[in-house]
Amino acid sequence: MGQDTEHTPVWIMRQAGRYLPEYRKVRSKHSFREVLTTPDLAEEVTLQPLRRFSLDAAIIFSDILIVADAMGMPFEIVPNKGPVMDWSIGSVQDIDRLHVAEPEESLPYLARSIEAVCDSLSGSVPLIGFAGAPFTIACYMIDGGPSKQFSRTRRFLYEHPDEFDRLLSLIAQSIVRLLKMQIDAGAGAIQLFDTWAGLLGPKEYRNHAFKAASQVLASLDGQGVPRILYVGQTGQFLETIREAPAEVLGIDWRTSLSDAIERIGPGYSVQGNLDPCALYLSRKSIPAAVKAVLEQGRKARGHVFNLGHGILPDVDPDHLATLVDSVHQFSG
Amino acid sequence: MGQDTEHTPVWIMRQAGRYLPEYRKVRSKHSFREVLTTPDLAEEVTLQPLRRFSLDAAIIFSDILIVADAMGMPFEIVPNKGPVMDWSIGSVQDIDRLHVAEPEESLPYLARSIEAVCDSLSGSVPLIGFAGAPFTIACYMIDGGPSKQFSRTRRFLYEHPDEFDRLLSLIAQSIVRLLKMQIDAGAGAIQLFDTWAGLLGPKEYRNHAFKAASQVLASLDGQGVPRILYVGQTGQFLETIREAPAEVLGIDWRTSLSDAIERIGPGYSVQGNLDPCALYLSRKSIPAAVKAVLEQGRKARGHVFNLGHGILPDVDPDHLATLVDSVHQFSG
Repeated sequence: MGQDTEHTPVWIMRQAGRYLPEYRKVRSKHSFREVLTTPDLAEEVTLQPLRRFSLDAAIIFSDILIVADAMGMPFEIVPNKGPVMDWSIGSVQDIDRLHVAEPEESLPYLARSIEAVCDSLSGSVPLIGFAGAPFTIACYMIDGGPSKQFSRTRRFLYEHPDEFDRLLSLIAQSIVRLLKMQIDAGAGAIQLFDTWAGLLGPKEYRNHAFKAASQVLASLDGQGVPRILYVGQTGQFLETIREAPAEVLGIDWRTSLSDAIERIGPGYSVQGNLDPCALYLSRKSIPAAVKAVLEQGRKARGHVFNLGHGILPDVDPDHLATLVDSVHQFSG
Repeated sequence: MGQDTEHTPVWIMRQAGRYLPEYRKVRSKHSFREVLTTPDLAEEVTLQPLRRFSLDAAIIFSDILIVADAMGMPFEIVPNKGPVMDWSIGSVQDIDRLHVAEPEESLPYLARSIEAVCDSLSGSVPLIGFAGAPFTIACYMIDGGPSKQFSRTRRFLYEHPDEFDRLLSLIAQSIVRLLKMQIDAGAGAIQLFDTWAGLLGPKEYRNHAFKAASQVLASLDGQGVPRILYVGQTGQFLETIREAPAEVLGIDWRTSLSDAIERIGPGYSVQGNLDPCALYLSRKSIPAAVKAVLEQGRKARGHVFNLGHGILPDVDPDHLATLVDSVHQFSG
């Protein structure tokens, strides 16, 4: 990423996941948490998509919420519901129940998984490490689990803006440690996911979520790995995001890539942004959809091809094969 | 709306709803469907917020999905889950199970409720009628109920674009009849809600959702009532929405109102767009938040004050009183 390549590099958000029968087979024998915390299993599912498709990067199988675990708020993944936190922040005082993570002690499996994957890849393609951005993690910590609106979180922000920032800062410090651990273990790039920041108004985004995400990214200056920032509902915040201490900006599928490139300016590479639903097209229709994104991407400083959001679980893997091959063919 | 007024007019999306104790009292005795289908009850809850606050419009208590009922797809409101359709569109053939609505026959209660409210209001303020836009209704018809991603719907659109348009057109024809019935019964303005259109990429929005919404709005040309189009995730589509056959464009809270006004141009009045969470602020902090929105709104051709989304159910009604009074005070 950011390096000269023969073709536009391509990887896919959630490429290690449920749409792959070999992933579902592993999960039929092991819980999500077992796969997450057992380096051999995490390595296996991380490498599965690389065996099928000629992808240009792996991304470690992990979960954005492990940082909450490491800060003193464990969670469970409940089938058909998603993550449910053991407790949630209901008052300003509850913030004191959290501490800055010591990931080497509380999440050692993550470093071991990354080392195992990097050994297997032996430099063929980079491994991407990742974390959730502070605001998105705060959403789960305050609302306690999945939500459409995360209105408890937004209420907390409006009622206690300074304490909300204190929480974001605690999370940010923890994430920096988590990402440094991943880089030390061999990650060749990192991505910060601010999935829920799109729920905020422009001022709240800039003054709180973006500030905390920037604090994380700036702390990784000089680590020698490209930093990718992915924000849900990217389009509404491009004028703010283009100030991020990052090399690559992820663009979701709801913004035209050429508009995004124009609004961002020449300072960044972009990543994205085919609609995940384009994989529902017939295999013969996929190349044209890929080509349209590639053509827009040419105007950027650099372009990493990806979907504009995670791959959907009911996609036919053969359709993804067509996508990956098309990216290489048209950008060769 | 669109008329000269002494102050900026204000109404609130979902102003007749759960945040009001008097609404909850009615609902403790009557199901949602009973309130919906019984003109006396619908009238009562429609008027409740007008008794508390000096609002400049009423909006009829109804539901966007009644059009599905009238087209041959009944639904139930399941507590803590939302609307669940009796059946859903799983194939192209299923579209033939639907018919264009005859609202006078299948939804007579709606006209009776509107007439009752208009009688009570006797012209003091206008009553707004509304409907869901075709794409948003199609989301429920295909996914069968609430969803975060509506990926079955988006899959259908990608796999069968022409049949998807046929479905949208059937819904659009039904909505036109439903809205005309509301205007005939006394509605002085209408709002079309395209809540889920924000899930689409820019091309899919323009070619399908927007086209169908425009078909509805254009069919109401010459009816003599202002047409308001509200699209979720407004910010990503303003360059398309500014071609809508409408007088007023609703703006959600995630776009700065002044940016939106600039991008829309001088052809429209705007409605919005205070963050619904701003009602969580202390009562003394609300006026400043209201003022900031009013100041941005001055640059528009006309401004109807509203939240940028429906009022949240855990808001203190006294905070809304402060909001309404502030709008009148600062724009007087």
